[in-house]
Amino acid sequence: MLSFENDYSSAAAPQILDRMQQIANEQHPGYGNDQYCQMAGDKIRAACQNPEADIWFLTGGTQTNATVLSAITPAYAGVVCADSGHINTHEAGAVEATGHKVLTLPGQDGKITAEALDDFCERFEADANHTHMVYPGSVYVSQSTEYGTVYSRDELAAIAQVAHDHGMPLFVDGARLGYALESDGCDMTLADVAMIADVFTIGGTKVGALFGEAVVFTKRNTPKNFTTIVKQHGALLAKGFLLGLQFDTLFTDDLYFKLAKHADAAADRIRAALVSKGYDVAFTSVTNQIMITVSNDKAAALAKQVKLGFIEQVDAGHVMLRICTSWATTDKQVDELISLL
Amino acid sequence: MLSFENDYSSAAAPQILDRMQQIANEQHPGYGNDQYCQMAGDKIRAACQNPEADIWFLTGGTQTNATVLSAITPAYAGVVCADSGHINTHEAGAVEATGHKVLTLPGQDGKITAEALDDFCERFEADANHTHMVYPGSVYVSQSTEYGTVYSRDELAAIAQVAHDHGMPLFVDGARLGYALESDGCDMTLADVAMIADVFTIGGTKVGALFGEAVVFTKRNTPKNFTTIVKQHGALLAKGFLLGLQFDTLFTDDLYFKLAKHADAAADRIRAALVSKGYDVAFTSVTNQIMITVSNDKAAALAKQVKLGFIEQVDAGHVMLRICTSWATTDKQVDELISLL
Amino acid sequence: MLSFENDYSSAAAPQILDRMQQIANEQHPGYGNDQYCQMAGDKIRAACQNPEADIWFLTGGTQTNATVLSAITPAYAGVVCADSGHINTHEAGAVEATGHKVLTLPGQDGKITAEALDDFCERFEADANHTHMVYPGSVYVSQSTEYGTVYSRDELAAIAQVAHDHGMPLFVDGARLGYALESDGCDMTLADVAMIADVFTIGGTKVGALFGEAVVFTKRNTPKNFTTIVKQHGALLAKGFLLGLQFDTLFTDDLYFKLAKHADAAADRIRAALVSKGYDVAFTSVTNQIMITVSNDKAAALAKQVKLGFIEQVDAGHVMLRICTSWATTDKQVDELISLL
Amino acid sequence: MLSFENDYSSAAAPQILDRMQQIANEQHPGYGNDQYCQMAGDKIRAACQNPEADIWFLTGGTQTNATVLSAITPAYAGVVCADSGHINTHEAGAVEATGHKVLTLPGQDGKITAEALDDFCERFEADANHTHMVYPGSVYVSQSTEYGTVYSRDELAAIAQVAHDHGMPLFVDGARLGYALESDGCDMTLADVAMIADVFTIGGTKVGALFGEAVVFTKRNTPKNFTTIVKQHGALLAKGFLLGLQFDTLFTDDLYFKLAKHADAAADRIRAALVSKGYDVAFTSVTNQIMITVSNDKAAALAKQVKLGFIEQVDAGHVMLRICTSWATTDKQVDELISLL
Repeated sequence: MLSFENDYSSAAAPQILDRMQQIANEQHPGYGNDQYCQMAGDKIRAACQNPEADIWFLTGGTQTNATVLSAITPAYAGVVCADSGHINTHEAGAVEATGHKVLTLPGQDGKITAEALDDFCERFEADANHTHMVYPGSVYVSQSTEYGTVYSRDELAAIAQVAHDHGMPLFVDGARLGYALESDGCDMTLADVAMIADVFTIGGTKVGALFGEAVVFTKRNTPKNFTTIVKQHGALLAKGFLLGLQFDTLFTDDLYFKLAKHADAAADRIRAALVSKGYDVAFTSVTNQIMITVSNDKAAALAKQVKLGFIEQVDAGHVMLRICTSWATTDKQVDELISLL
Repeated sequence: MLSFENDYSSAAAPQILDRMQQIANEQHPGYGNDQYCQMAGDKIRAACQNPEADIWFLTGGTQTNATVLSAITPAYAGVVCADSGHINTHEAGAVEATGHKVLTLPGQDGKITAEALDDFCERFEADANHTHMVYPGSVYVSQSTEYGTVYSRDELAAIAQVAHDHGMPLFVDGARLGYALESDGCDMTLADVAMIADVFTIGGTKVGALFGEAVVFTKRNTPKNFTTIVKQHGALLAKGFLLGLQFDTLFTDDLYFKLAKHADAAADRIRAALVSKGYDVAFTSVTNQIMITVSNDKAAALAKQVKLGFIEQVDAGHVMLRICTSWATTDKQVDELISLL
Repeated sequence: MLSFENDYSSAAAPQILDRMQQIANEQHPGYGNDQYCQMAGDKIRAACQNPEADIWFLTGGTQTNATVLSAITPAYAGVVCADSGHINTHEAGAVEATGHKVLTLPGQDGKITAEALDDFCERFEADANHTHMVYPGSVYVSQSTEYGTVYSRDELAAIAQVAHDHGMPLFVDGARLGYALESDGCDMTLADVAMIADVFTIGGTKVGALFGEAVVFTKRNTPKNFTTIVKQHGALLAKGFLLGLQFDTLFTDDLYFKLAKHADAAADRIRAALVSKGYDVAFTSVTNQIMITVSNDKAAALAKQVKLGFIEQVDAGHVMLRICTSWATTDKQVDELISLL
Repeated sequence: MLSFENDYSSAAAPQILDRMQQIANEQHPGYGNDQYCQMAGDKIRAACQNPEADIWFLTGGTQTNATVLSAITPAYAGVVCADSGHINTHEAGAVEATGHKVLTLPGQDGKITAEALDDFCERFEADANHTHMVYPGSVYVSQSTEYGTVYSRDELAAIAQVAHDHGMPLFVDGARLGYALESDGCDMTLADVAMIADVFTIGGTKVGALFGEAVVFTKRNTPKNFTTIVKQHGALLAKGFLLGLQFDTLFTDDLYFKLAKHADAAADRIRAALVSKGYDVAFTSVTNQIMITVSNDKAAALAKQVKLGFIEQVDAGHVMLRICTSWATTDKQVDELISLL
């Protein structure tokens, strides 16, 4: 059945599968100490225009978020994020399982603002009882967000400034970073992200890879003995060369960006169709995720013909659904979907 | 200086200090395996009208909350409470440090409702993605609440019913239980609490003891090897007999209740004076805590003559302050305070 | 350069890479809710002769050990294992990071005995202070062990019996289970493991897969809400179908066993050569790992021609090295190695 | 019945109980922000001859060890200690519950040596796989030890030197520090401890107080936001002034040292009697704890007349018992015990 359920339902870009075949008879050192990880790191550093960036390759998003956030957040502190942030909603309490509270700010279109963050920190510091409270210790934002929206360059830079003013690193969850950067609605490059964020991820799982998230520490700020921290979190892949190989492929000939642009263009076509047909499109998404609010009846009708993501029951009569394109979405699938809407 | 800052600024009721002196030359087994703990447990069981209640004595409130909540909440689950709940605001993330998310409901006068709890659980269970979310695993309420308000017997019973319907135990934080039960505004007895809650605490620290919180498991539901769990949390006092002795004293001749009633009566006098003088009294507190909203200037003037608790900066021109009586508050202190208001 | 460094230096068996290509254009549900996971589970259940076995697929060994062990071990308890157990030595404290002490027994050839386990538990229970100690809460053994040795069926059954007598589940780390089961020195089948162990893993990473460990709960004893527990540990792969596909392939036409047998046979040839050449072979390994103790000079000479694993500096003049074959080892590589020895 | 079971069976020195009475009508700020904590800190700084020492007061020993050790040990690291160390044996895994492995060295009379520590660290650093292992991150020693023995000044200084050479702080658990320092067999002063250790505790619970452990950071090395860390561990006593008051009393007129000397002298008398009567005295204890190995029959006979501590079943026919004096032990009790032996 036609599916726009998510962006992780297909295996991998053919270039990646081909290279897997090509290296079938090679032997490589384990745990990321291989040439492909080195090559991929070099290419990412170049793409980031940051020769000092330190690159690590982990397997999955929740794993990466919990490993990195627990490593950069002091024991007495929590992670500040939008209430809609993935770590707060759909990671099963993985951050709290490492001992850190998630401190939420009300999100706007899935985003926090520098102003709200500053206000939160100022109030905290002014509170006479703040030594009995959880300190804001790091800041988590998603680019693109869980609702498909994006931060502008200025917005993200302002958040970073506030974070730094209050002694916190800024972590950017880039599980869908490609879809953000290639969106027409985004004014930011990978180099911008690398300049602004203290640490960010480049999601492979949702943008062409079988699996894998690249972690980029941008400011000579890699936590000490990070290999051991990654291992302790069960996040050190034995065959790390598989991660290196995939990211080396993704960052060859701009494949990562081309795959993302393809998905964004497909979403743009669908968005245009939705608007012209009078759908209630929620949020100001400009990336590969589109949220629509439809009646229960409409949702039931659609469910017979296409798999979509379920977001929430908005009220007794309406649900919010997600249409999600990916690097693997075909023009034919888009046509079929539009004809169903 | 006159102080109504909190209810833990004085050492202990004279009866307790006297008994400390009386046992000065005795020797007792350690870790709660002594006659006083046994005697105190018997008296609390009788006061609870629950012969099967299992009683433990720990030292402090945050310690007790974290130890018990982590023991009764499954690893995959969080603790549901009001956003104003002490574990969510002023325990430095102690619950999260044990790996559990605190799941908040918007509080009303510091309380949650059975309806809101049920709605939260129903929405959780209906959510297609709930296996990626933190399960509601236990329910935490404070009696009296952080704002001095109390749950009625019906309200608490309804919350327990909803909790049980969703497979969760109800934990009642009774750090100020005495002040709740002896309030004219409360329709509940200790036996009611013991019947309704799955586990609750009887706060000694704020009601006449030097320190100490009694934990009462009401339904043959003590977590297995709880001694070891308490020890692992650093919460097993070597000289446990000091806890037993204090609670034995507090539950002799209703001392615990008399001390609490005294503080509530003092607060009632102050509340009446505040109302007659036109103060803006926040919340519907009926216990020993009174929250007032005053101008910054008024707050500054008061601060020269009496120590009060600071709650929050309400807006640019106003602050919320707390007037807190205790078992040790004297009539003279109340008179002085009223004359200052 | 020739390498017998480890058994995770090659990508994957060609059958697995081929199937990855075949499904390139398919779309599948995420997180293991796909047909391949279902098919793989069915095949594993059949191979285990245990229709009730509950199968899960995780990514890596340390991740799997920490996730499962923390889920089956009570909060007040630790995990008992040989001092040479992987969780005690080379997993960066991942088990302790979940809050559980690792309780070690002196290993013999990398193995524990039922007698030693029973003695440990008896002493624990007899200790007057045991409530202040870490309870033995689960038992961890590796099959094959970190030294390439194997438990006999009787040995493992006896350990399980003792574990059960003391209320503990037996966890078998099967990161190299295939190499154990196909060894001429092993008298056990997969069905035996499934009958004896309460939960065990079938390692894919080291036996033909790109990555992946199957977890098998054998006695309707899957921890409640295990999906959420796995997610909380960052161990729920988005594209779970990649795990299902690999294990479906491995358990088609006995591929898993054939791959393992091939490696064991290669090791047998090498072992025979080592013995005939008078090497000091440590332990009684019968699987794909061979430990040899050589002089520093010999080690240096070998290092110029073949990559071997480094185990430890035995004394000032000698080191222990590991020769490790795998499913990917060729006859030519074995010939070359033997000629070097 | 006569009891030499432990050193925490009596309430407190009369000077402490008297001061509790004297302050009964006072009011003090909470959480250690009171004049008595200030005064006690000043007196301890003076006694330590370390004007920069930072003093904190916590309630119990296990709580203190876990709170401080987790704060000074990096996330990727463990705590090195003797296998007989209290944190390794009788604290219910409290350190592991904070996520840190306890790394044990074989103890000699309950002590570790600088040489063994250095060897352990050198081997760790030389191990090719050490990034997959738990780093040695801090060092824990007990003074006096769990067997009543003491480190000499040179021994402790050498351990500190090795610890510092390997980048680790030295933590000295002084639950029985007074009994160590006042022993004829100890050549160290409190000022020596303060000079050598990076952080140490001065145990009140076992030396005259109702409860309480003073934590001394000696080198401007208090962990950032330590108040919050203490609170997060449930270790911040509401009525902190009770801790301050007790330590102020103990450090007035050398009371702490006099109480300890009294217990040591009593133990010396008992030791002399044991030797003259031909008992098998284990370890080279010079403090208030004496370990004797007796036949089961003898142990049973003694048990009818005096309560002693049980250490372990040495073999089928013998047990090790502990005779423990305290600040509260009377000459009459010593006479009675000696007559029974």
